Amino acid sequence: MAKGILRKLLLPKEEKFFPMFEDMAELISKSAHLLARIIDHNEPAKQEETFLEIKHLETKADDIVHQVFDTLDTSFITPFDREDIQRLTSKMDDVLDYINATSQKIKLYKPKKLLPQYRELCLVVVRGCEQIRIAVLELHNLKNPDKINNACVKINELENIADDIFHQLISELFDNETDPIELIKSKEILETLESTTDRIEDVSDILKTIIIKSA
Amino acid sequence: MAKGILRKLLLPKEEKFFPMFEDMAELISKSAHLLARIIDHNEPAKQEETFLEIKHLETKADDIVHQVFDTLDTSFITPFDREDIQRLTSKMDDVLDYINATSQKIKLYKPKKLLPQYRELCLVVVRGCEQIRIAVLELHNLKNPDKINNACVKINELENIADDIFHQLISELFDNETDPIELIKSKEILETLESTTDRIEDVSDILKTIIIKSA
Amino acid sequence: MAKGILRKLLLPKEEKFFPMFEDMAELISKSAHLLARIIDHNEPAKQEETFLEIKHLETKADDIVHQVFDTLDTSFITPFDREDIQRLTSKMDDVLDYINATSQKIKLYKPKKLLPQYRELCLVVVRGCEQIRIAVLELHNLKNPDKINNACVKINELENIADDIFHQLISELFDNETDPIELIKSKEILETLESTTDRIEDVSDILKTIIIKSA
Repeated sequence: MAKGILRKLLLPKEEKFFPMFEDMAELISKSAHLLARIIDHNEPAKQEETFLEIKHLETKADDIVHQVFDTLDTSFITPFDREDIQRLTSKMDDVLDYINATSQKIKLYKPKKLLPQYRELCLVVVRGCEQIRIAVLELHNLKNPDKINNACVKINELENIADDIFHQLISELFDNETDPIELIKSKEILETLESTTDRIEDVSDILKTIIIKSA
Repeated sequence: MAKGILRKLLLPKEEKFFPMFEDMAELISKSAHLLARIIDHNEPAKQEETFLEIKHLETKADDIVHQVFDTLDTSFITPFDREDIQRLTSKMDDVLDYINATSQKIKLYKPKKLLPQYRELCLVVVRGCEQIRIAVLELHNLKNPDKINNACVKINELENIADDIFHQLISELFDNETDPIELIKSKEILETLESTTDRIEDVSDILKTIIIKSA
Repeated sequence: MAKGILRKLLLPKEEKFFPMFEDMAELISKSAHLLARIIDHNEPAKQEETFLEIKHLETKADDIVHQVFDTLDTSFITPFDREDIQRLTSKMDDVLDYINATSQKIKLYKPKKLLPQYRELCLVVVRGCEQIRIAVLELHNLKNPDKINNACVKINELENIADDIFHQLISELFDNETDPIELIKSKEILETLESTTDRIEDVSDILKTIIIKSA
């Protein structure tokens, strides 16, 4: 992040938002990878540290949210609408909140099993977060929104894939799980994971708004 | 829809949005009627095709969303704020998403029984969707917003009716259902149905915003 | 409220919004206190009246929402952006909706026990509502937003406290509750209570937007 600090010092005020967006996107992507690791190793001893790491990334994201708001407070010129800067930041923060919520539910519910198929759904989240990163890196270049548009299309496709996987997993769960408390746990962990892809789509929606306004 | 295509070709660019809104409202209304049919015939053999039909309408609605966004991209003049066009479209799409979600949950959970009382709640959804259609047909006439306002008031009343029916059904469910897994299924199908009326109210809220801004 | 009526008559039109916001904040705060009372006395006979009181406050809040919208309709000058007036009102209304939803779930589910620890979480809601009141009283003074900013910071801290308490309670619930239907009841009552603190944070977010725009 040393590079990031240098860039921030050299940037004109209105461009100071871009590195914050990029840091946020990096936190999201990192936390998605950590969540995949939790699902791979459903042993409390191995998971404990990763739960904490994700929680830590979520706190760092909150700091960036505050930093963006403070910078907005003292900036006369912004690269795009003040409200959209705020919304984009909040929506990216929401993605990390849902990744953390999934992680926390695994921690709190202690499900007896995390089926390997859950990883498939988690990988869709990982790929969606990667598309957010790609899009956010292009925000300084709104006059050529092709790459952002393309990332939004991919996020939409991933959302559809997530839906299909999720439906398959839920259907199997209701067919096979006879312990109601374990069913409650698995159902909700899967739902929170699937909702994460909806939050990724919310980021995509605000990106589309930003492009439309700048057209 | 042949009539719709003709109208679109003849319309000046800024009016091309209206037929899209109307098509969307028609899809919503149709899907609500199909959902009522599913609840009436809780036999998987009879339901399977209707699940697919609703899913198909939901995909068509997604296409309209993209069409609206593309048209926004290439339009300099819009009938009202670009962001509100986007929000109205997304919120109408959400209604269909929830109708489809209710349908999918019935499909995936395979509840042993769908009580006839569920139909009552579904009829409130049907009537709310009808009010959306009425309001959307008036969007070209924002200087006389009485009919839209009236539809919004009715949607609000329907939301209150939905609340009462929902509470009654949930209370009976907890009083009578002793199988926890069946309780989970019914509770969530009812909740998704009830949330659909909240999404209808979201459409009403954005309609009210559009009216306020145009005043 | 007689004082309120007098103030309203004497105020120039654009300032008529402030007493409505203040009334709304008062309703929220009152309903939070009533909810704490319900949790203290988990005996249906003692609760019944309080359920109704909260429901009544929620209806009154809906009336204020309509009043704000009507006033917006007939006002040319507003103290801040029309859309933000609308959003602030809706978000405050949402807080009361969630307090009422928690109350209604206790009523409908009839949980065998409401643990005294639930009160702790409810007190965070009470304190968050108090911060909303403090902030709303400062809305006429947007040039000195320190007190509003301060309330928003406190709401954020309360949200974090609520998260910790909630996680502790859910973890204990899954460790100790063996009756799946009672687990469903308690889990959802706790979740709705915790979501109320999220809705309080939504109010805080819109307050921050209003401050940013007025800077």
